[in-house]
Amino acid sequence: MTALNIGLIGCGFMGRAHTNAYKRVPDFFPELGRRPVLQAVCARSEADVRRFAGQWGYASFETDWHKLVARRDIDAVDVCVPNNLHREIALAVAQAGKMVLCEKPLAMNAAQGAEMAEAVEKAGVANMVWFNYRRVPAVTLAKHIIDDGRLGRIYHYRSSFLQDWTISADVPQGGHATWRLDVAAAGSGVTGDLLAHCIDTAIWLNGDLRDVSAMTETFVTERVHAETGAKQPVGIDDACAFMCHFANGSLGLFESTRYARGHKAAYTLEINGAEASIRWDLHDLHRLEYFDHRDRAEVRGWRSVHVTDNGGEHPYMDKWWAPDLQNGYEHSFVHQVADFLAALEEGHACSPTFRDALKTQVACDAILASAERRRWVEIG
Amino acid sequence: MTALNIGLIGCGFMGRAHTNAYKRVPDFFPELGRRPVLQAVCARSEADVRRFAGQWGYASFETDWHKLVARRDIDAVDVCVPNNLHREIALAVAQAGKMVLCEKPLAMNAAQGAEMAEAVEKAGVANMVWFNYRRVPAVTLAKHIIDDGRLGRIYHYRSSFLQDWTISADVPQGGHATWRLDVAAAGSGVTGDLLAHCIDTAIWLNGDLRDVSAMTETFVTERVHAETGAKQPVGIDDACAFMCHFANGSLGLFESTRYARGHKAAYTLEINGAEASIRWDLHDLHRLEYFDHRDRAEVRGWRSVHVTDNGGEHPYMDKWWAPDLQNGYEHSFVHQVADFLAALEEGHACSPTFRDALKTQVACDAILASAERRRWVEIG
Amino acid sequence: MTALNIGLIGCGFMGRAHTNAYKRVPDFFPELGRRPVLQAVCARSEADVRRFAGQWGYASFETDWHKLVARRDIDAVDVCVPNNLHREIALAVAQAGKMVLCEKPLAMNAAQGAEMAEAVEKAGVANMVWFNYRRVPAVTLAKHIIDDGRLGRIYHYRSSFLQDWTISADVPQGGHATWRLDVAAAGSGVTGDLLAHCIDTAIWLNGDLRDVSAMTETFVTERVHAETGAKQPVGIDDACAFMCHFANGSLGLFESTRYARGHKAAYTLEINGAEASIRWDLHDLHRLEYFDHRDRAEVRGWRSVHVTDNGGEHPYMDKWWAPDLQNGYEHSFVHQVADFLAALEEGHACSPTFRDALKTQVACDAILASAERRRWVEIG
Amino acid sequence: MTALNIGLIGCGFMGRAHTNAYKRVPDFFPELGRRPVLQAVCARSEADVRRFAGQWGYASFETDWHKLVARRDIDAVDVCVPNNLHREIALAVAQAGKMVLCEKPLAMNAAQGAEMAEAVEKAGVANMVWFNYRRVPAVTLAKHIIDDGRLGRIYHYRSSFLQDWTISADVPQGGHATWRLDVAAAGSGVTGDLLAHCIDTAIWLNGDLRDVSAMTETFVTERVHAETGAKQPVGIDDACAFMCHFANGSLGLFESTRYARGHKAAYTLEINGAEASIRWDLHDLHRLEYFDHRDRAEVRGWRSVHVTDNGGEHPYMDKWWAPDLQNGYEHSFVHQVADFLAALEEGHACSPTFRDALKTQVACDAILASAERRRWVEIG
Repeated sequence: MTALNIGLIGCGFMGRAHTNAYKRVPDFFPELGRRPVLQAVCARSEADVRRFAGQWGYASFETDWHKLVARRDIDAVDVCVPNNLHREIALAVAQAGKMVLCEKPLAMNAAQGAEMAEAVEKAGVANMVWFNYRRVPAVTLAKHIIDDGRLGRIYHYRSSFLQDWTISADVPQGGHATWRLDVAAAGSGVTGDLLAHCIDTAIWLNGDLRDVSAMTETFVTERVHAETGAKQPVGIDDACAFMCHFANGSLGLFESTRYARGHKAAYTLEINGAEASIRWDLHDLHRLEYFDHRDRAEVRGWRSVHVTDNGGEHPYMDKWWAPDLQNGYEHSFVHQVADFLAALEEGHACSPTFRDALKTQVACDAILASAERRRWVEIG
Repeated sequence: MTALNIGLIGCGFMGRAHTNAYKRVPDFFPELGRRPVLQAVCARSEADVRRFAGQWGYASFETDWHKLVARRDIDAVDVCVPNNLHREIALAVAQAGKMVLCEKPLAMNAAQGAEMAEAVEKAGVANMVWFNYRRVPAVTLAKHIIDDGRLGRIYHYRSSFLQDWTISADVPQGGHATWRLDVAAAGSGVTGDLLAHCIDTAIWLNGDLRDVSAMTETFVTERVHAETGAKQPVGIDDACAFMCHFANGSLGLFESTRYARGHKAAYTLEINGAEASIRWDLHDLHRLEYFDHRDRAEVRGWRSVHVTDNGGEHPYMDKWWAPDLQNGYEHSFVHQVADFLAALEEGHACSPTFRDALKTQVACDAILASAERRRWVEIG
Repeated sequence: MTALNIGLIGCGFMGRAHTNAYKRVPDFFPELGRRPVLQAVCARSEADVRRFAGQWGYASFETDWHKLVARRDIDAVDVCVPNNLHREIALAVAQAGKMVLCEKPLAMNAAQGAEMAEAVEKAGVANMVWFNYRRVPAVTLAKHIIDDGRLGRIYHYRSSFLQDWTISADVPQGGHATWRLDVAAAGSGVTGDLLAHCIDTAIWLNGDLRDVSAMTETFVTERVHAETGAKQPVGIDDACAFMCHFANGSLGLFESTRYARGHKAAYTLEINGAEASIRWDLHDLHRLEYFDHRDRAEVRGWRSVHVTDNGGEHPYMDKWWAPDLQNGYEHSFVHQVADFLAALEEGHACSPTFRDALKTQVACDAILASAERRRWVEIG
Repeated sequence: MTALNIGLIGCGFMGRAHTNAYKRVPDFFPELGRRPVLQAVCARSEADVRRFAGQWGYASFETDWHKLVARRDIDAVDVCVPNNLHREIALAVAQAGKMVLCEKPLAMNAAQGAEMAEAVEKAGVANMVWFNYRRVPAVTLAKHIIDDGRLGRIYHYRSSFLQDWTISADVPQGGHATWRLDVAAAGSGVTGDLLAHCIDTAIWLNGDLRDVSAMTETFVTERVHAETGAKQPVGIDDACAFMCHFANGSLGLFESTRYARGHKAAYTLEINGAEASIRWDLHDLHRLEYFDHRDRAEVRGWRSVHVTDNGGEHPYMDKWWAPDLQNGYEHSFVHQVADFLAALEEGHACSPTFRDALKTQVACDAILASAERRRWVEIG
């Protein structure tokens, strides 16, 4: 088995999630020809990065990402830093001729995203964006069902991502833990952070968006900055909802917020076709709800499919435990790494590439523009 | 449309439920040839019975049930009094050559029940026992599915009826509202009151019981009598569980209690066959859970069938509103009256007859005997 | 008890639902001083109306609604005809000085609605619109919880009403059974039929709407007319979604369609406050989901409240059966009649009045205008 | 960090689950002073064990367990072989003065179990049995709630473990994959395999059992042996149910089967106390249902607690991802290893020890004896 030397930049929540995936993939996907090796991790704080490297088993660490990118023993760079740094690092990695795996959203905006997509394509390096929810087995199963044409003509797609962690006005913005509230670091609020997930899945399952009409709201307009302690205006969107048309003629309805009390990570989606419908909810990510109008009428109803194998029919699940034994959040990252490695071997791109993720970025820009101007905005 | 003159004895909770059913059946089952007429109601307290007759529209009332039974303008007598009075009244009604509809359980014990069944059969009068849950559309649908052979060989039947209303030691026994806690009036506790429902449905769906092993418990051993105020030993079973074998070779497991905090009327059942399984819960009585192993594996799962029509395939529901609009508890009684009237027209018995209900009584006797002796008891 | 003589115009689905409510209310609300009497029913087809009167027990019938309105033995006229007839009849009833109960939506548009509201107010007659879902006990309970201030500041309101009965292009438009697909009779499609319910409840629970941005779609653009057999363009909206701001600063998101496979009457709502949230789903109308952030963290979670009494704390439920025994769809109408009668006695209006319902009509007009013009529309 | 050198015997399903736990614990519990090291794995087939060691990263392998036990570089032996080998290996490990971690059930019967418990105690070696479900966070939370006295006096405990994988008579017995159907290897059927889990949790949560009355059934009485191809009588119990009394006066009801169509790993439990009740279901292992009678009546209901942190109040979950992001089956093993390591450091035993697990073994013996003799059997 060949090594794929990983250099990770950023050791926050996502740094942990990706690292865990790199470590686990050989145990559960032993047939793969390449094995990720934790070669180096980089963060600005030496204390932090030293501790992280020790805990997770990275062979070395850096405090300057330029050095990590320049190292000859690194094959692939994983970008797990705030959004405002994605572009610069990704361009440097591409220029260095290395593979790049970038945390979502791809960039601060579509212009940056386009530049990044062009850069990796020009450099001819493998690239991928961490829209991990595609690889939740129930979501992958939804993709299979749709691609098999079992839903018939699609009429509706609806999706939401609800949280409640910023309701308190005492939550600060900026800094390590709360950079997602700082528009300078994040680019936007729930749109880039949460709706981007909904949109990526939606495009994957239901095709391109044609136009959008959005509204955003900032409920708490001033917050203390976590590092400076200064009270500053809040620049992000606390909530965002939008309507859209898909290219296939179906209607879309999306919503995201951090002010939905009772929800911490309520990512849900539903798709209605002429023949069948599908629903999914991250809170019980191992289940897929499925309704098929062709069932015998007497016992027709929504099915709760426990996506834990069903005789080997469920994506990825044969790699794990036994039927009915559920997996969790982290496994989506393991699956994404496995697919990336398999794609490397087979010599094709692993979706979502930068180019794929750019579509979501374009949609996010359109959404924010629509909300600002209070009018419909065409896409593409 | 011909009148069926009803004489109701007892105006408690069940008196209300049955009266409501008599009044509603012509509106929703207009095709029936006979229409119940509220001719007379009887209770010992004149004040109570007068008020009840006025509220519900009974044409007259009595305070002595012998008089009601003797009246020539009564076709059918509905016995809604505590269990210790069932036998005497039912025998008198049969002797008077009138139809008799008896609240469950049929009697205080199997000996009484046998006497009653023989009496109505000898008199040749129509008779029925109010095991109303058979006519919840989801339960009737379960019967259809089973009779169609869709479950395959049956392995397991489990059922429970859980309540929590007697946890407080301050609840009295005896009297109007709490006669169910008085063994002299009720004959037994949860066995006759709640398990009788579970057993009636079980026999209907899965056939006869062969043997039982039971345990009972009385958690609160003394209670004040509601009328006398005297503290007295409690004679009923507060909780009862039993295992059994069915004649078809399947295993049964049953439980009932009034000490299950969080449950008020949690009647549930599940039946597992080689090919398919069924579950039902009174808390959402308009739903039937159904699992069919023959479904395509990828999307196989428990279905939640909203038993509210599905293109006319759901029992009784075409009589009511529109698809997906749910009915409630009371409708089971309306359906039972409608079936009784239809059976009268068609000249056959309406199940469960006294003879049918006797089986449940025999099972209850065996359960109580088993619990007392701590050993298995054969049935029949 | 005084009689309230009812004259019903229209004997379709809603005619049945209202009639059932009139008949049942005295049984379950015996304390009310007035009792509805089924004095007359009116429909154009003599065969139909004669049959309906016979089945349900109306004392007489008419085939010309002008005659019914003119009859001196009628106190209150119930308007259960297609939307395009509401205005004319309601104005005539008001002019005749009679009470008027009008099926929802109030009118074809806001102009008609305003005229009707003014007419009943000028005439000083009691008036009400049948937005029955306010009186589902779980929804009424939601209102109590909100009015008690338990949710805190409201951030989000979302609601949808999903059906699937018009997916087939073979469903005709117009005529008795499918007038809701005929724009000439219905005024609009899902907006007036389904979203009107969502909006009425929303205004009741969360206050006025400030502006809307909507999209509509007509998926099947031609249908055969049920009576003429001619293929005609479809004029209604098959689906409609809209975003809005409420006057209290919260964001709203609404959707309705008849193309959501797997849903027959999926009316849902959710409201998120700073302290607590509420969810409700018509499919299990006897449950209210409730989340309270003030609960002890260890066991904090969404509660499924079985709105069937809880010690007398649940609206209306003490009138019916016993704890945990669920009611159904029809009971919402019974409750509305009971409240109407109680309001009569107490000498105040019974909400929603024509004036109340006009707000929903105004919102519907704004929604349709917004969808047509593809821009935000302010509301009065 | 000190190494704890692990020697694993057996590389089947449980060998994988334990190995995964050893590997992951340092990543997520970095504060622990000892780190498991995969020193050696043992299995009879050299091909199998070589492959397993390579995939999972064991430093070496053996094909004779005596050699592994004798190796000086092994600190702890993990026994993951069929039940009939537990005793001999465990005794040898104890005699070698090494720690022993034994897969459940502890032994073939209570006599063996007692011998094993005495051996490890006499040797003074750390010991533990892999009843992993205690460390599912929702189950651990249940333990906390109970120990805090929040349920009040306990009345009922019910638990079941339902599967459906042996319904087909074509499933063989014996051999690698199906030794659980071979009474010579397994000792019993569902009793030792599945009910043992239910009983271990029950004793942990609710205390000792006092007596049992059980029934067992073997639905398929002959099966082909996987290795010999010979048709042989089936010696195991396919299904087992039992009633019991707990020492605290509460009633227990348990069931297990491999013939419940629609269930693959349906381990459920419910406990009813005077004040509150708890339910859990392995199918959604990250949720705990909780009902508290002390809640305000209006909004009292069963809560679905998503056991994924709630502000740090949920056991183990602060070690993993973020609120609302669910874990899966395998994490229970990681938690058990972490607790074992922590107990080593703190110098106390890690429950369930062999002595703890012996109680479950005694109960299983009593259950099988009760079923055979068809009578109640006292425990201890």
